Amino acid sequence: METPGLPDILIERARAGSRRAAARLITLAENDPAQRLEIARMIYPHTGGAYVIGITGPPGSGKSTLTDKLAKLLRKRNKTVGIVAVDPSSPFSGGAILGDRIRMNDLALDKGVYIRSMGTRGHLGGLSVSVGIAAKIFDACGCGVILVETAGVGQSEVEIAGTADTTVVVTVPGLGDDIQMIKAGILEIGDILVVNKADRPGARQTASTLLAMRQLGEPPDREWIPPVLLTSADKDEGVDKLLDCIGAHRVLRQISRSQRNERTDRLREEVLALLKEKIADRVLERHGLPGELELVLGDMYDRRINPYEWVAQKAASCTR
Amino acid sequence: METPGLPDILIERARAGSRRAAARLITLAENDPAQRLEIARMIYPHTGGAYVIGITGPPGSGKSTLTDKLAKLLRKRNKTVGIVAVDPSSPFSGGAILGDRIRMNDLALDKGVYIRSMGTRGHLGGLSVSVGIAAKIFDACGCGVILVETAGVGQSEVEIAGTADTTVVVTVPGLGDDIQMIKAGILEIGDILVVNKADRPGARQTASTLLAMRQLGEPPDREWIPPVLLTSADKDEGVDKLLDCIGAHRVLRQISRSQRNERTDRLREEVLALLKEKIADRVLERHGLPGELELVLGDMYDRRINPYEWVAQKAASCTR
Repeated sequence: METPGLPDILIERARAGSRRAAARLITLAENDPAQRLEIARMIYPHTGGAYVIGITGPPGSGKSTLTDKLAKLLRKRNKTVGIVAVDPSSPFSGGAILGDRIRMNDLALDKGVYIRSMGTRGHLGGLSVSVGIAAKIFDACGCGVILVETAGVGQSEVEIAGTADTTVVVTVPGLGDDIQMIKAGILEIGDILVVNKADRPGARQTASTLLAMRQLGEPPDREWIPPVLLTSADKDEGVDKLLDCIGAHRVLRQISRSQRNERTDRLREEVLALLKEKIADRVLERHGLPGELELVLGDMYDRRINPYEWVAQKAASCTR
Repeated sequence: METPGLPDILIERARAGSRRAAARLITLAENDPAQRLEIARMIYPHTGGAYVIGITGPPGSGKSTLTDKLAKLLRKRNKTVGIVAVDPSSPFSGGAILGDRIRMNDLALDKGVYIRSMGTRGHLGGLSVSVGIAAKIFDACGCGVILVETAGVGQSEVEIAGTADTTVVVTVPGLGDDIQMIKAGILEIGDILVVNKADRPGARQTASTLLAMRQLGEPPDREWIPPVLLTSADKDEGVDKLLDCIGAHRVLRQISRSQRNERTDRLREEVLALLKEKIADRVLERHGLPGELELVLGDMYDRRINPYEWVAQKAASCTR
């Protein structure tokens, strides 16, 4: 009989309720692509139960507070909740800015809440891959809902949103940040648009502007027109309505053919990317190509070897 | 004798001075990874002459104006100049916002200037790959200096900066945007920090703050301490000093061992990524795996097949 490996043991413990084991499992999967595939393979039978909600918006929009309030509301409804919070890296320390998360202490004490913070750098295979595996592990631990919170505005947010079932884009009164969001393509990824801090002046104005901008590009036959909601997360106002709205979007997703197509496309992409990575790694290792590259790297640097010629030759010879 | 293919013809024309041929070559390389490697391989002997300057910063910092002024100054010094401008995608049109570039009309009329605008989405292999190939093609066309301008703040900017020899980070008086830049890790990628619009109130204050922040994480033995410069690009003030400063950084790079190591690391990464892509594509095609995946995708979607199990099995069987 085979001795169970570290992933097996961690999976068993995590599924028995150990949040520490879940955390170690995520770290293992983040740092080693081979382990990642193996862990994904092993937990797969235990996954598929979680609904993933993406929450994104510019810094200062209060999306962390909104995430916390949504988590608390879900806890009241007896859901086990996972939170994956993508914090921007500090340029100097290299670590995640965890200030926002200190507020989450009361959530962290709740055994029905799994929290993972991650910085935006140094993710083997990309940030959205790390977010995806953390969500899968929380899913396997029994989280019925997973909240993926991303700070900042940029390409990574758009990619991460691709892994969410429902994406909430959070903004605040005043249009400065919104224009950045438009430029970064953040607005169009929102299934639900939220104007948070709605007690501030200009909230309705911002909501109208969002409605107008949204309509600009709206194809008339769309199944779901992203609603614009007003919330004041710090005062607990509008959060229940937001959750109801997410619920409505969830129901639509289940019956929608276009959503099925979209998710099939995403699955195809993920499987092909994994397959390519796995195949390439195996072939590279078998043929000792990383070592061979080391020997010629100096010559490439000094332009005595054409690196693209080398790639074409090696790719041809080891897949003959 | 083999008939020359489209890339051969375009390369010949582009190198003879046809900016249109250069543009078509970039499009060809952007849209087809196989062509991209082939084009990179063919133009390689003609490259290596260009110095790549990255210019990045938040929207409204005036970096487009700064880029234009640098280009004009370089033209006065008889350099052929390439400009790769990464414009954020409009969420609704899907195209690049070209407003800023209209200003460039006088540059566009100059045959010694090659300009390429690209949106932030839909790049096969990633935006930094598209930027890299455009820069290589401009290099092969004889551009001595290539300016890569990226708008927005985010992960893509950090990746693109990795392809530049010298990175200039542009900011403006007032600290709102700076804090976003710190959060996104933009500040630490700057070899030179610029406070543009320096005629505005608070410019010196912003410069001092940047100096202070920079020193926070400074290892004492660093070879190059990023200087903070004041410019007013629209008034042509400080641009020549900036160019001199870039020149100084360039000299340092040429003699620096740590810079050589850094560039070797980057070369290794690029070659390995290309090799993996090429190998994976060849194996996938040979074994008809995309077609096979199509047949089981429905079952995967309905969770009757474990996709990770499938990946592990296929990867093993086709690399046996």
